Amino acid sequence: MQDNLSDTAPLLLVEEAEAGVALLTLNRPHARNALSRELIAVIHREIERLGGDPKVAAIVLAANGKVFSSGHDLKELTAHRSDSDGGLAFFRDTMQACSAMMLAIVACPKPVIAAVEGRATAAGCQLVATCDLAVASEAADFATPGVNIGLFCSTPMVALSRNVPRKRAMEMLLLGEALSAADAVNYGLVNRVTPLGNVRAEAIGMARAIAAKSKATVAIGKAAFYRQIDIPLGDAYAFASEVMVENMMKLDAAEGICAFIEKRAPDWKDA
Amino acid sequence: MQDNLSDTAPLLLVEEAEAGVALLTLNRPHARNALSRELIAVIHREIERLGGDPKVAAIVLAANGKVFSSGHDLKELTAHRSDSDGGLAFFRDTMQACSAMMLAIVACPKPVIAAVEGRATAAGCQLVATCDLAVASEAADFATPGVNIGLFCSTPMVALSRNVPRKRAMEMLLLGEALSAADAVNYGLVNRVTPLGNVRAEAIGMARAIAAKSKATVAIGKAAFYRQIDIPLGDAYAFASEVMVENMMKLDAAEGICAFIEKRAPDWKDA
Amino acid sequence: MQDNLSDTAPLLLVEEAEAGVALLTLNRPHARNALSRELIAVIHREIERLGGDPKVAAIVLAANGKVFSSGHDLKELTAHRSDSDGGLAFFRDTMQACSAMMLAIVACPKPVIAAVEGRATAAGCQLVATCDLAVASEAADFATPGVNIGLFCSTPMVALSRNVPRKRAMEMLLLGEALSAADAVNYGLVNRVTPLGNVRAEAIGMARAIAAKSKATVAIGKAAFYRQIDIPLGDAYAFASEVMVENMMKLDAAEGICAFIEKRAPDWKDA
Repeated sequence: MQDNLSDTAPLLLVEEAEAGVALLTLNRPHARNALSRELIAVIHREIERLGGDPKVAAIVLAANGKVFSSGHDLKELTAHRSDSDGGLAFFRDTMQACSAMMLAIVACPKPVIAAVEGRATAAGCQLVATCDLAVASEAADFATPGVNIGLFCSTPMVALSRNVPRKRAMEMLLLGEALSAADAVNYGLVNRVTPLGNVRAEAIGMARAIAAKSKATVAIGKAAFYRQIDIPLGDAYAFASEVMVENMMKLDAAEGICAFIEKRAPDWKDA
Repeated sequence: MQDNLSDTAPLLLVEEAEAGVALLTLNRPHARNALSRELIAVIHREIERLGGDPKVAAIVLAANGKVFSSGHDLKELTAHRSDSDGGLAFFRDTMQACSAMMLAIVACPKPVIAAVEGRATAAGCQLVATCDLAVASEAADFATPGVNIGLFCSTPMVALSRNVPRKRAMEMLLLGEALSAADAVNYGLVNRVTPLGNVRAEAIGMARAIAAKSKATVAIGKAAFYRQIDIPLGDAYAFASEVMVENMMKLDAAEGICAFIEKRAPDWKDA
Repeated sequence: MQDNLSDTAPLLLVEEAEAGVALLTLNRPHARNALSRELIAVIHREIERLGGDPKVAAIVLAANGKVFSSGHDLKELTAHRSDSDGGLAFFRDTMQACSAMMLAIVACPKPVIAAVEGRATAAGCQLVATCDLAVASEAADFATPGVNIGLFCSTPMVALSRNVPRKRAMEMLLLGEALSAADAVNYGLVNRVTPLGNVRAEAIGMARAIAAKSKATVAIGKAAFYRQIDIPLGDAYAFASEVMVENMMKLDAAEGICAFIEKRAPDWKDA
């Protein structure tokens, strides 16, 4: 997947960081890792592919360059203003494609961990908020500055407002100012802050810990998390109780509980 | 709008703090800025009027006196105990009018910023929680003490429980004790704490920053925020994607994005 | 209620800590207060009984031993693997019984306060999250480690994810690591942290403060809290406004407001 004909570097690097841990790296540093249509498509495709890869247990999403991602590719969007419909169809396709990619991260059976070394803005900030977990460097910051350019960060706020307290989200969205890494961890947007240079190692460490669990169990739990959080309490319990029952009937629950009682390491079958 | 016939001061002062920033000041300091029916009505009316005023970009809601607002006017409510229905109709009208006023703040296309110098209790605390943003002085505190007088703060908790973590809200509601400004900012009830005497200036500063944005964009974003936060994730994305498309087709998005790419200041048309 | 025929100690101790304050103490310290079917049943029954006892105003839920509760009784569950259905019916009954017990705490008209001296894991952590308020010792910690044994903490996450920010909950659920008491209070899982040895006294102190309020008012407010938090904002206001009206028509609101205006202590009728 190439940025343009004269650029031979792929937009997204895909590596195996270690056994069970896939590392996706946004690789448009010269374009501040803006989410062009092509980059959105390749992230979406790789998340789905890795989600279905039985060797992969967790995914780290990192970025090359000083900016994690600046969000949508404004030059690409603007170029379509000259379309016969003023860009309407392209804008709609783009927003739907981007939202579908974000929802693919949520739907992915493997946890996705953002590793944020630099600035994450607009849909780049949304990408961090959308990941299940996030690690940031002390130099990272976060903003939803669309309001400054006449385009409110309405899709980013879907993820942001589900991660941080309401007035915090509103302040970021209305003022467009940057949130420091320290505030981001205080407000719940990221899990951990580490020194610059240590972000990927920390994120890969979290992924490694997840890779030691039963993949079948993690998949059940991640899917249940996002399902139950959007429904009323009584419905959530009825749903989660049944998830527990199904989980109990899996081989890995039988093995894991036996291993725990017998004080030995479990031998996962991922089934 | 007068408190009573012998009192010539208006219940609510309406000023232009600076270009684009309206300042509403609760002005019943002798009555702890209690939300009488008349004051509720005038806040509601002014919020709606300012919401439709093309010169206004943001609204600061402050209060004269040591108490921001003590909530409902208990003397006014109690006087209606002698109505033929024991006050039932008056109580219902009052609660509905107060809730409608709070919802008018949420529905107002202009951000509303609470500037809280002193104590905010019951529906006064609700008013702070309902505003989009809030600044408090170090001397401010917050309480939902209705439980102490046999009248649980059930309407205030609608706003409170959407601003602070669940057990924090429950503690305030069940114990009725005051929350310090420091805790209020930690829990997310207010955005910023400033020294006493600096609250209005800080709130007006936030309003000024908002006034520099496109009003059309802010209106789109604020409305979308409250719509998307109450619906499931997939629906929220479908909705917000379409909001982004509509926003992109506005003149201000075209202008703002061009200005950003051309590294110049935008010239908003508010359209 | 006995743990087994040779064990004469009741599974759950029920005491009156002081006037109006019931103290429930999990009493399977040798089994880390695991929630056996029998213990689940007796907690459920006692919560319902105390909920209907007019002398009880608030309930403290404590535990004997170093572990508050380790969650489900894995030995009991595992023993049913040899049932003809592989344990399916027993697992389903257990999960439904446990969820019903948690929902009984939510539905109980009396506030329930967790007093957590030691470790609370899995459904034990859920029990803390489910209580209306919680006090923890500095030595307490909290975990949802089911992922480590192949059984994701799907029912615990229903309560956990409604108490702490989303990425915090996800980290606990995916990594299975323990959260310190200090982090638990920062994230909103518990209200207060106290030195070890002071937990029950602190929790009883909160219960005593609640016992000084009108029970009728507390019951109205607690029920309204959990109802309004799961519905959209406009519906929540319509509901809560009507709750306020009904509350106003109660004797205790009339008495409490009069007492407040007359600057005297109220004399609750709990009606």
